[in-house]
This record gives sequence, structure tokens and C-alpha cells, in this order.
Amino acid sequence: MAVKFDIYRFHEIDSTNNYLAKLGREGFPEGVVVVADHQTNGRGRFGRKWSSEESKNLLFSVLLRPTFLNLDEVFVLTFAAGLSAAYAIEGTTGLEVTLKWPNDVLLQGKKICGILLEGSFDSGLLNYVVMGIGMNVNQKKFDETLSSIATSMAIVTGREFDREELLVFFLSHFSSIYDIVRKRDFYSVMKRWREKCKMFGKRIEVNLGNESFSGTFEDVGDDGKLILKTPKGMRYFSAGEVKINVRED
Amino acid sequence: MAVKFDIYRFHEIDSTNNYLAKLGREGFPEGVVVVADHQTNGRGRFGRKWSSEESKNLLFSVLLRPTFLNLDEVFVLTFAAGLSAAYAIEGTTGLEVTLKWPNDVLLQGKKICGILLEGSFDSGLLNYVVMGIGMNVNQKKFDETLSSIATSMAIVTGREFDREELLVFFLSHFSSIYDIVRKRDFYSVMKRWREKCKMFGKRIEVNLGNESFSGTFEDVGDDGKLILKTPKGMRYFSAGEVKINVRED
Repeated sequence: MAVKFDIYRFHEIDSTNNYLAKLGREGFPEGVVVVADHQTNGRGRFGRKWSSEESKNLLFSVLLRPTFLNLDEVFVLTFAAGLSAAYAIEGTTGLEVTLKWPNDVLLQGKKICGILLEGSFDSGLLNYVVMGIGMNVNQKKFDETLSSIATSMAIVTGREFDREELLVFFLSHFSSIYDIVRKRDFYSVMKRWREKCKMFGKRIEVNLGNESFSGTFEDVGDDGKLILKTPKGMRYFSAGEVKINVRED
Repeated sequence: MAVKFDIYRFHEIDSTNNYLAKLGREGFPEGVVVVADHQTNGRGRFGRKWSSEESKNLLFSVLLRPTFLNLDEVFVLTFAAGLSAAYAIEGTTGLEVTLKWPNDVLLQGKKICGILLEGSFDSGLLNYVVMGIGMNVNQKKFDETLSSIATSMAIVTGREFDREELLVFFLSHFSSIYDIVRKRDFYSVMKRWREKCKMFGKRIEVNLGNESFSGTFEDVGDDGKLILKTPKGMRYFSAGEVKINVRED
């Protein structure tokens, strides 16, 4: 039961997620994809700006209608998106990609892809989910503030890539993982995700609004939660609520 | 930390929930309330039409920004809304109101109030929640199809009520329950809710898409889930996914 993708292309758009959320509200079907060369108002998590040099990177959003999921199961789509991005980038570059909880995709330890899931619900049922993806493909330079944490496929490999091919790779990987999600086999999705996560055993700090917790990154549950080993025992954190810092010591 | 309510009144509107969802997307603050004498496109759960005779009933929606809740905790707002409605109707009529899982408010066994929660999230964090309430106040007659399941305060008591006063009652009860929700004391909210639920021990049938389950209504958890006792053991159901029938035998 593969998703049938219907791709809309824009040279410039305010935000591919905003555009698809509108189509989502208007009842458009699952599988509509919006791709843009340039976003005038690209966003990341926590309302942060998502910068991208024009026509260099792959910026797109996918409309989903995962009515088979409960509201507390949406997390699995973030992990499915991260995995699909990792597989697509690995297939294209031949390099190993790692995943950082909850939704970062890293190449050589720097961010290569961002994921932003937005959606709407109605009486505890999902209405639509918009899965936004930004992949740094052919951009060669980043702002001073970003260059220490972000990279691109071109920077790492020294060559340019076909963004269309990368999109097709992503969508085909996502389609097959989405079939696993559809069977509610969250274990298999999270198992694959854990295979690409290199944070286990690392000392991290979890910031939860005003509170912060230090401990060891013990595991990620099949419910997507971060399991932090602290001196006072295990603590569980949902992806939505926290920011984490990894201590490189 | 009471919510400051800001009430917008309309004679006619398509749907108070639709209107507030728009304000929610535009960044309006928590506490905006939209009241309408008449909705041209009033909705209930599962996209069902919500009918109401013009200028007879209390139809309103409240904009919330419960950023302190995780996505899997939104359920508690439905229960908080049901409780507030029950308290408001009891305070006005002096009659006992009961609650039916997950979100029905009953007077003398018939539906007196409907609740529709809609909302949007962004990276696992809630953006806004619109809590829509329809209370049957002064309507004296219902369609044939509805009259066996719906009632109003006027039908039951034989007199009319001030809809404004009822709104103020609701909002003040809700404000104090919302403070409990803010402390994440879901146990206290659910405990109060269970006190007004008369379904315990009843035989019910749970319809979950294609599957259906029969059993005894054992309890409602602090996570809002229905706990059904079946011959094969306890089963847990989320409010979003199911419809239930109570067997009156």
C-alpha cells in the first residue's frame, strides 16, 4: 500500500510547511509533496529560522493523513522521517549518517538535515500531519554561527548532487517505512532508528524549560522517549518538550 | 494564575471552532472566547453536524495555549471541559449531571452538552487548542432522530435560563480546573471526572474501526483511557479512536 506522491514545485514560497498545512485544512489527500528552491519564511523547531541558500538545497514537505495513529503516536513519524533522510543521504553519498535524538540527522557530526512535523487533530484523532524536511545538499558556505554545527553533502564530499534524485530516494524510503508504521510496528521503526544513533552511553544535559537534568543517554524507547540514567534513577523525556546538549568529554 | 477571558460575540458564524482555529494560527493569546447565537456549520465529533435552534442554546469555543502539555496529554482538556460543563449545568439547574466516556455530558440520561477539541502541534509541542462547547439550554424541541438521545435544560426543568450566566459559570469552573491541569495533577482532574461517571460495571461494546470488543466498563485511567474488562483480560482504549455503546440490560 505505497503512498502515491503528487509533487508540486515552487521556485519561491514562504514555507513549504505553511503551504501544505493550508492544503491539509482544505482536505487535500495524503501524499501531496511541495518542493521549493527558496523559502522566504523557512522554519525549524521551536520557531527558529531555517536558512538555506537559494536553489542549492532540498526543501520539501509531505502531507500525511495518518488516521491510524493516536495523538500520542505521532512521534513515530519524526523518527521515520529521520531514518528516510539518513538512508537517502547514505545512498547518495556513500557516507554514514547518524541520528541524534529526537530529530537531527548528522553527517560527520554536523547537521545535514532538519525535520519539522506539524499537524492538526480533531477530538483526539489526527486530521493531517505536515512533514517538513530541509536537506543541505549543494550549499558550500554557512553563516559563521552555523558553520560549526551545519554541513552539506557538497562540503563533505567535494561534489554536487542531483536534488531531484535525492527527493525520489527519500520518498521511496519513507513510503516503505510508512507501511511499517501503518502496521503499528513501532518497534521495528525504532530499532532501525537506534541502529543509526550514536548517543548511547554519552553524558548529556536535558533542558526542560526551567529545569535541567544531567545523566547518561541510556536508550530511546519504542514510544520515542529519551531514557536518561540519572543518579536518582531513570527519567523519561518526550521529544516535544526538551532540548539536549551532548557533552563531548 | 487564572485565565483572562476575552469574549467575542457573534449573532451568526460558520463555526466558533473554525473561527478560533484561525485566530489560533494567527497567534491570538489564550483565553479568547467566541460565542455565537447561531452556527451555519456547527460540528461535533467525527465530522458530525451539530444542530442547534437559533438563539436558544449556548455555543462557544475557547482558545487555549497549553504549552505545558505533551501531545499525549491533550486528553485531559476534554475531561476538564466535561467537568466544567457538568458543574455549570448543575449550578444552574440544581439537577445532577453525569458524564459518559469520553466526552458526553448527560442530564437524565440524555445528551445536554457536546465537546469538540481541535488543535495544532508543531514538533511534538502543542501550538493551540480550541475547545468547542455546545450546551442545550432553552431549546424545547429536537428533530425526531435526536429527541430520543438529546435534551435541554428547559425541557428537563420547564423553565428558561440565562445563557450568559451559564457561560460565566462554565468559564470560572474551567479556569480553576485548568489551574490543576497546569500543575499536571491529572489524577485530581480524573478523580473528579470519575465521581460523575455512572458507567462503571456496565456492559459495553467498543467499536474500533473494523474491530469491536465487548466487556465491562471497568474504569478510566489517569491517562484518560477506557479500561475494558474482557474475557481475555483488560484492554485499554484511547478516546480518539473508538465509539462505544452501553447495553442497557
